[in-house]
Amino acid sequence: MMNFQLYIPTRIVGGEYCLRDHADLLCLGKHAMLVTGKNSARKSGVLDDLIPQLTAAGIYVTVFDKITENPLLETCYEGGQTAARCGVDFVIGIGGGSPIDAAKAIAAFAANPQMQMQDLFEAEKRIHPSLPIVAIPTTAGTGTEANPYSIMTLPDRERKKTYSAPDSWARVAFLDPRYTATLSVPYTLSTALDAFAHALESYLSPKSTDISEMMALYAARKIWNVIGDAPAVYTMEMRHELMAAACAAGIAISITGTGFPHPMGYSITMLDGVPHGAACALFDGDYLEVNERTEIGREKLDRFYAYLGVDGKVLKEALPRLSGVKLRFTEEEIDRRVKLISGAKNYVNSPYVLSVDEMYELYRKHFFEK
Amino acid sequence: MMNFQLYIPTRIVGGEYCLRDHADLLCLGKHAMLVTGKNSARKSGVLDDLIPQLTAAGIYVTVFDKITENPLLETCYEGGQTAARCGVDFVIGIGGGSPIDAAKAIAAFAANPQMQMQDLFEAEKRIHPSLPIVAIPTTAGTGTEANPYSIMTLPDRERKKTYSAPDSWARVAFLDPRYTATLSVPYTLSTALDAFAHALESYLSPKSTDISEMMALYAARKIWNVIGDAPAVYTMEMRHELMAAACAAGIAISITGTGFPHPMGYSITMLDGVPHGAACALFDGDYLEVNERTEIGREKLDRFYAYLGVDGKVLKEALPRLSGVKLRFTEEEIDRRVKLISGAKNYVNSPYVLSVDEMYELYRKHFFEK
Repeated sequence: MMNFQLYIPTRIVGGEYCLRDHADLLCLGKHAMLVTGKNSARKSGVLDDLIPQLTAAGIYVTVFDKITENPLLETCYEGGQTAARCGVDFVIGIGGGSPIDAAKAIAAFAANPQMQMQDLFEAEKRIHPSLPIVAIPTTAGTGTEANPYSIMTLPDRERKKTYSAPDSWARVAFLDPRYTATLSVPYTLSTALDAFAHALESYLSPKSTDISEMMALYAARKIWNVIGDAPAVYTMEMRHELMAAACAAGIAISITGTGFPHPMGYSITMLDGVPHGAACALFDGDYLEVNERTEIGREKLDRFYAYLGVDGKVLKEALPRLSGVKLRFTEEEIDRRVKLISGAKNYVNSPYVLSVDEMYELYRKHFFEK
Repeated sequence: MMNFQLYIPTRIVGGEYCLRDHADLLCLGKHAMLVTGKNSARKSGVLDDLIPQLTAAGIYVTVFDKITENPLLETCYEGGQTAARCGVDFVIGIGGGSPIDAAKAIAAFAANPQMQMQDLFEAEKRIHPSLPIVAIPTTAGTGTEANPYSIMTLPDRERKKTYSAPDSWARVAFLDPRYTATLSVPYTLSTALDAFAHALESYLSPKSTDISEMMALYAARKIWNVIGDAPAVYTMEMRHELMAAACAAGIAISITGTGFPHPMGYSITMLDGVPHGAACALFDGDYLEVNERTEIGREKLDRFYAYLGVDGKVLKEALPRLSGVKLRFTEEEIDRRVKLISGAKNYVNSPYVLSVDEMYELYRKHFFEK
């Protein structure tokens, strides 16, 4: 069977000062909207590098810095309306996953000011192609710079919905590890765990291809080499490794999607504020455990452990430990959380398919007060 | 150092009947020029798959089947003029490397009928972007479906020149190994050796990145697994492997370019009719040999041999043997050939840089009548 397929329309540029060295790739129009959060663009140093380049090229700049973690659909709608009104013709997402996810949605809304908020998810309502998107990550985690996904939080503040379109890929992504240098050690670890979860979940997906597998193995090994010993400090060299790995893992999931640690972790992110990466890592051990029970899972995981140079047992213990999650819930709280996540499509995306009973079981194992 | 960079704008689709299964990706305009040689498009079965799809989509078809091996710049110019006159709005290259290389040049000439023949190589003369290009390889060798290179033979019939442009990448490539099923065993081997040379030469290039290295190792192992035993027949499964590998190797050289086996082999292709892949393979053993003399070459090749599961000595002996080249030249003939190829830029593209004296030495070793 031919398992070689490829579609990565994003141009990925990497290295320290890559924005300065490839400024020509940045100029995709005459008026850019910078989509970001309250602090990250400034604190990371992106604005210091970016503004002079845009100014020198005579590009107008509108800043939209209202993006929060778990970006709200309504905020993106507002951003798109603003962009359309101001004549913005391309969008630059700067930050962790959220502002880049938001930039994708804003680019669609801005090109289609006739759309209602919910129309984002309907291809036939998006009449005009999105504005061109530039992605400048300031974390090494989500990999959204290298896939078309954009996770929107719906107005009820509980449900999330994925927006993805042929033109929601960034045209160009700039990976400069300097932009992650101000991140704290725990935050760096949590984002790295997110990328690791992407790599692992992509690797085991029945949709994996030769390319997604290469990317997943590449990413997982690099991340494990850095975080395996839970370093007390992240050197620039480590940040290089993590940034390349997170991007590769982002490519991997563009092909396969993710597995059950993602929805399983989602409820404690939404309701209990656990960072996304840590929440996924908590369930990565279970994910390894149950998939080892299948023949194909065991065969693939043997290769995975060998490639990473780690014993499976060690990895299964380390990932939930690194997550640092320590929560206790009542039966009612568990019930609410499982109800929130049991409808996801991710459960069939691994050799072992988790049942709803098993979801309760795992939640109880991790969270039930004894 | 961040060694993660990526730019592969071609959408690569693979598998038996992939053209039929992804016909929507084929329709890039209203009038297609099919660029091909005298026989390959018909014999390979591509036309049988392609014409009904184009007809069903209401796309006009103009066939331009004048492309020969080592495609002539003047033929491409003629094709471009014809395409412009007929109102062709996209180009489909069908065949081995030559028709796809030609399609890239024709797509540029067709969009720029004001250009003179030599203007192809000057970016500022190519005012309009090339017509969209579709690539349908019928050999598993050159990898041109996955890179921007197009090797043109100049009107003197001796010199070649590479055309490459931001818009000379195919929009989409269809890799159906069925199209290689009618190729003879020696021809299949020679094309596989070409792809192997790409993988090997890319791997050792100082320009290699994490992505190019992944692609190179992936390709080299697959090819070696198939051709190592010089099979008497190529199964469809083997042809799958070779097609994926050739494409991956094509991606690898899009990042790094090739090393000295390419120019070294070139003279005996041009003057003595040795198939391109075999000509490169003849010098692959020398390439391994001299690069092992450098520290970085030795370190990389140790990993290469380990990844392929082959002893270096075995590989160094096997590649020239598989090439099947047995030629004898006089000193004058050698002199003429070295003069033809000593000016190439490829010599600096490996840890070991070959001197002109060494070129003579290697030519004498292989070709001098004792």
